[in-house]
Amino acid sequence: MHTIEPIGIIHSPYKTVDDMPIQPKGSPAVEGQIVVEDKYIDGLQDLDGFSHIYLLYSFHKATRTEMLVVPFMDTQPRGVFATRSPLRPNHIGISIVKLLQVEKNTFTVGGIDIIDGTPLLDIKPYIEKFDSVAESRSGWLKASDEEISNRRSDGRFR
Amino acid sequence: MHTIEPIGIIHSPYKTVDDMPIQPKGSPAVEGQIVVEDKYIDGLQDLDGFSHIYLLYSFHKATRTEMLVVPFMDTQPRGVFATRSPLRPNHIGISIVKLLQVEKNTFTVGGIDIIDGTPLLDIKPYIEKFDSVAESRSGWLKASDEEISNRRSDGRFR
Repeated sequence: MHTIEPIGIIHSPYKTVDDMPIQPKGSPAVEGQIVVEDKYIDGLQDLDGFSHIYLLYSFHKATRTEMLVVPFMDTQPRGVFATRSPLRPNHIGISIVKLLQVEKNTFTVGGIDIIDGTPLLDIKPYIEKFDSVAESRSGWLKASDEEISNRRSDGRFR
Repeated sequence: MHTIEPIGIIHSPYKTVDDMPIQPKGSPAVEGQIVVEDKYIDGLQDLDGFSHIYLLYSFHKATRTEMLVVPFMDTQPRGVFATRSPLRPNHIGISIVKLLQVEKNTFTVGGIDIIDGTPLLDIKPYIEKFDSVAESRSGWLKASDEEISNRRSDGRFR
């Protein structure tokens, strides 16, 4: 067992889990504000040198865990670890967002797919030399960029 | 507060935090085994369709939190959230590794930079259409691929 405590709060225009983009790439122009607790301000130093960051957060609206889920971009059940569904053990989400501005303990990000009021657990820089994957295979996901962009969430993962 | 429980254990050839690669890209040929608890086996279905996965894990050897750290690839202190150092609040790490084989509750991954016995918190598929970043800026990190590849860890983040 391991206890984690939010380091801040994510604010976004999405007030419910219905009708949200399903990934940051579905909402490149939508901005969110992240407010980090004052005691962590010094830890944000140098973050403004990065164009993209990972947000780790709690899927706090997910109240159950399922081993098989039907992902938004598919019609059949898949193992939860082969999806990004919130109904996973530990309910931790990650999103890669564009970092637009940092000012003291508040920063603005672009391409947000996270519900308003979500507890933030960690921020990490996206480092191209560590994180870029030259060639990859994405299993069941056959959707086009356009379909991903247009798809909106519904209440299935409550 | 949010309580998390390991879903499995990560096994690797690295027995101490000294002399480990600092990122998966420093150890492409090194294999690790992940053993997931039996109760989560069904959640691994469909994972084998993905070539790369994110591992989320607990930096269980990090016993303190610091706001400023000197990263392995730099010589001056940086805000912890602008680094991948374990000394962050919540002590959660992420690595993108190559998925080589899945057999029941055990899977083999390539490119491991994680210490043996690390508690696994989550597995997510790397999905190119969600996760690839076309152009990015990596702040303080000036190192070449070769330097990253050759660099080994030391005890600074204990």
